[in-house]
Amino acid sequence: MTRLGVGMIGYAFMGRAHSHAWRNVARVFDTPLDPEMACICGRSAEAVAAAASKLGWASHETDWRRVIERDDVDMIDVSTPGDTHAEIAIAALRAGKHVLCEKPLANTLAEAEAMTAAAADHPSQLATVGFNYRRIPAVELARRLIADGRLGVIRHVRAVYLQDWIVDPEFPLVWRLQKDLAGSGALGDIGAHIVDLSQHVLGDRIASVCGMTETFITQRPLPDGSTRGEVTVDDAAILLARFAGGAVATFEASRFATGRKNALRIEINGSLGSLAFDLERLNDLELYESGDSTSGFRRVLMTEADHP
Amino acid sequence: MTRLGVGMIGYAFMGRAHSHAWRNVARVFDTPLDPEMACICGRSAEAVAAAASKLGWASHETDWRRVIERDDVDMIDVSTPGDTHAEIAIAALRAGKHVLCEKPLANTLAEAEAMTAAAADHPSQLATVGFNYRRIPAVELARRLIADGRLGVIRHVRAVYLQDWIVDPEFPLVWRLQKDLAGSGALGDIGAHIVDLSQHVLGDRIASVCGMTETFITQRPLPDGSTRGEVTVDDAAILLARFAGGAVATFEASRFATGRKNALRIEINGSLGSLAFDLERLNDLELYESGDSTSGFRRVLMTEADHP
Amino acid sequence: MTRLGVGMIGYAFMGRAHSHAWRNVARVFDTPLDPEMACICGRSAEAVAAAASKLGWASHETDWRRVIERDDVDMIDVSTPGDTHAEIAIAALRAGKHVLCEKPLANTLAEAEAMTAAAADHPSQLATVGFNYRRIPAVELARRLIADGRLGVIRHVRAVYLQDWIVDPEFPLVWRLQKDLAGSGALGDIGAHIVDLSQHVLGDRIASVCGMTETFITQRPLPDGSTRGEVTVDDAAILLARFAGGAVATFEASRFATGRKNALRIEINGSLGSLAFDLERLNDLELYESGDSTSGFRRVLMTEADHP
Amino acid sequence: MTRLGVGMIGYAFMGRAHSHAWRNVARVFDTPLDPEMACICGRSAEAVAAAASKLGWASHETDWRRVIERDDVDMIDVSTPGDTHAEIAIAALRAGKHVLCEKPLANTLAEAEAMTAAAADHPSQLATVGFNYRRIPAVELARRLIADGRLGVIRHVRAVYLQDWIVDPEFPLVWRLQKDLAGSGALGDIGAHIVDLSQHVLGDRIASVCGMTETFITQRPLPDGSTRGEVTVDDAAILLARFAGGAVATFEASRFATGRKNALRIEINGSLGSLAFDLERLNDLELYESGDSTSGFRRVLMTEADHP
Repeated sequence: MTRLGVGMIGYAFMGRAHSHAWRNVARVFDTPLDPEMACICGRSAEAVAAAASKLGWASHETDWRRVIERDDVDMIDVSTPGDTHAEIAIAALRAGKHVLCEKPLANTLAEAEAMTAAAADHPSQLATVGFNYRRIPAVELARRLIADGRLGVIRHVRAVYLQDWIVDPEFPLVWRLQKDLAGSGALGDIGAHIVDLSQHVLGDRIASVCGMTETFITQRPLPDGSTRGEVTVDDAAILLARFAGGAVATFEASRFATGRKNALRIEINGSLGSLAFDLERLNDLELYESGDSTSGFRRVLMTEADHP
Repeated sequence: MTRLGVGMIGYAFMGRAHSHAWRNVARVFDTPLDPEMACICGRSAEAVAAAASKLGWASHETDWRRVIERDDVDMIDVSTPGDTHAEIAIAALRAGKHVLCEKPLANTLAEAEAMTAAAADHPSQLATVGFNYRRIPAVELARRLIADGRLGVIRHVRAVYLQDWIVDPEFPLVWRLQKDLAGSGALGDIGAHIVDLSQHVLGDRIASVCGMTETFITQRPLPDGSTRGEVTVDDAAILLARFAGGAVATFEASRFATGRKNALRIEINGSLGSLAFDLERLNDLELYESGDSTSGFRRVLMTEADHP
Repeated sequence: MTRLGVGMIGYAFMGRAHSHAWRNVARVFDTPLDPEMACICGRSAEAVAAAASKLGWASHETDWRRVIERDDVDMIDVSTPGDTHAEIAIAALRAGKHVLCEKPLANTLAEAEAMTAAAADHPSQLATVGFNYRRIPAVELARRLIADGRLGVIRHVRAVYLQDWIVDPEFPLVWRLQKDLAGSGALGDIGAHIVDLSQHVLGDRIASVCGMTETFITQRPLPDGSTRGEVTVDDAAILLARFAGGAVATFEASRFATGRKNALRIEINGSLGSLAFDLERLNDLELYESGDSTSGFRRVLMTEADHP
Repeated sequence: MTRLGVGMIGYAFMGRAHSHAWRNVARVFDTPLDPEMACICGRSAEAVAAAASKLGWASHETDWRRVIERDDVDMIDVSTPGDTHAEIAIAALRAGKHVLCEKPLANTLAEAEAMTAAAADHPSQLATVGFNYRRIPAVELARRLIADGRLGVIRHVRAVYLQDWIVDPEFPLVWRLQKDLAGSGALGDIGAHIVDLSQHVLGDRIASVCGMTETFITQRPLPDGSTRGEVTVDDAAILLARFAGGAVATFEASRFATGRKNALRIEINGSLGSLAFDLERLNDLELYESGDSTSGFRRVLMTEADHP
């Protein structure tokens, strides 16, 4: 196996999740590359040193520019808030590194286009976005079934991503609720997943869209508790869409769906059958195929050896 | 109990369902009125005579005008296709009868407004629409919980009514697929239910709406098989909406949701809790109330004596 | 259609349910016989008169012997507690009437054998037991699938019937908790259903059995509140069994399964597939058939026109 | 953190699972010990070398006696078939090592008693059995709720562990189907889990038991395909039991439950509430607490930060 030196920028929620993946991927799957957790980077020297020790990184840095200069680093894993994605990713590409960038890709369309252009300028380097849910076995099986024509012509997509972690009006104004840092709210954070996932699973692209966003709580306490600040992102977004292939779709992303913790749900109806998936039950794929009087949605338990 | 003579116009699918209700309501519930199945009406003398005998009606007619003239008839049950609703209902009101009209109320806005005006002109007579799902115990409990404030401020409504009975392109061009008879397709037939039900359960009104309709199969065989005709109604309709009280909503009505037979589903999220209902499991109400680490959606089985 | 005069003995819970069935069966289904609700019988003249009026019976009596003598009564519906089943049913058979007897058939084996002998002596008369769950569409489809070999060789049956209506130790000592009236507790009241249903669906007979019963609360308040009396029936019964055809089975009947209201659940595993049914979701049949990597338990929604 | 040198005997299915755990436990949780994957042991030098490289073990051996002599090994992880458990575990304890032994603990009662005695002789060393399901968050929450009295007096336990991997009569006679290697069949392999888990969750012990085993397919092809051999273990086991605290229980373990892949299900009914768990949906705990007309089984999604 070829060694792949990884440098990860960021060490919070996503940093822990990515560390777990880098640590185990070559131990569990038969991968052509052998990732080495070379360097982790964060602004606080003390905190990043602790994270390196805890998560199993060989070294740590406080300036991401130092990481992309290192010879032992082949790939940059960008796990920071969205406002720094473009700068880091473009610099990494120019430094000859592969890039894995967390979603949402960028906070503005201009940034995203600059990143896409940079990737196009370095075609021999990987430039990927962290839409990790594509790799869930149930999602991959869904994609294959549709690609194989098992559902026939796709007519409907209905997708929601529902969470409830900011229902409380006293929940503080964290970075994810600030447009200059996060770019958008539910739309980019979780809506991006259902838009990406439905396009990926259908093998089709959204052709037109119509939607609205809503901010239910417009003022929240600052994290230091001193006073209240303005919420500058959406709490929820709902969309109607039409795919190029003719399917019509509804999308909803919300952080105000009380009781729903991580409810990414997609249902797809085709002329011959239907599929339904819910991330809160990620080992199940619900599959319907038209047939006789014993047809019904069946729960395919995605834990068998022959599953993707 | 006071006798209520019922005259029913129409004897097909809805006629059978209404007959069952008239036959049993006073036997099962403690009602102030005692319905008598006085007269059923249909255009075919032979067929309506057979229906009267089978369903338990005391007499039958072939002209609805005769029914509304009868002294032994106090209430007219309009169970015909939508193109005749306005004429029959208005005539019945003018003849002094109570009216129960199947949904959708009318095929055009003008008809509906004329019917509403006729009802207003006869305030001592009942003028009701057959939104029967309002009376499902789970729906009534949902309405009460929201009215009592158990869910707090309502943020989200997501409602679908999904069927699949015309997925086959060879399914014939029945009256429900013809605009001049049915008025609209999925929108009026099943979309009407979810719009009505959500307004009823929330005790609120939709303030603004944005939507689209789609006809996937535009030509279908005529019922006599001779040739193909134009489908003039929608196969599916999807809507975004905002309630007067601030909730945002998505609605979807489709006859192309393969595998979904009668999937009227409503989920409502409030600041303190959430509710979910699915007509395919009509004895269950899913209820979430915010609390401690043992909170979760609970399935209230609506079969207890103290349920509405 | 041939008229069938019905005389029903008993007018409480089961009496109301049977009345509903007699009132509607020929209106909904195409039956060869046309039941006429001729006479209802109860010990209290006032109460039975009210029941007759409410439920739609043409006449009423206070002595069941009078009912079985009537010429306008062809069939006796025995809906009384178990201690009177044998006497009424045998007398009715001897009087030339058909008999429908509620379950459990009898309170003792001797009574049941006498009833069976009486039925054998009158072979031209119907002598049936009210195992109504056999007629649920999902149950009938299950029976047909097994009879057709769709599940292969049956290996396992696991059946429970769980209720919770006497969990409260202050629930009074009603007749169903007294052995001299009810014969047994959960075993005969609800256990009888799962034993019957599994034999019916499998088309097989239990060959051997091993079990135990338990009474968790041994003293309860008398219905008049005066004092406490002895509970003389079982609160729960659990059984292991072996069918003649080789399947092994577990059965459990309990009135102490807190939160379970009417949970009659049966799962059957065969060499080619499996079935699962839950009376709390009586429109669903879960069906598994071995196949490829998209196999899974599918929920057959039993509401289609071609279902039994 | 204190280093804990681990030596693992066995490298097949359980070996891979245990390796994943040793690799990650101190990275994900705050553990007092820091496991070091010192040595893996298997009989085939080539295969164990490959396993060491793939799974991340620092060294490998072919003789387990060498492993328990090593100074860099503090704990022996026994992940071999049951026939070698006693010998290895007792030798390891005598060599001063901690022991984690996979279940079932032993193939005979005599072996298990010898192992227990050895553990008692070395009280300062850990001697534990791999009942890993105890640590599932939903199971631990269940245990705490019962210990806190939230369910009241426990009345019923019903537990099944259902699999279907040997339904095919042509499935070969692997070691798990041979009594001399595996000790027993479904009873020890999966039945052991539900017996252990129910005792652990209730904090109670089974006082009496009555049961039966069944072998549906008595001859199977040898793994080399040459001929058929005798199946010497049970395919299924069903039990009735009574706990010391008064609860009654049913247990079923089967490898012939077609369509059930890893269905470890436990339901517990108490005087105040009930719990249900299904390993195929291991993030859910179903909880019922008696209350008002909105009570119902609620699905606690075990993915929150404050869950055990």
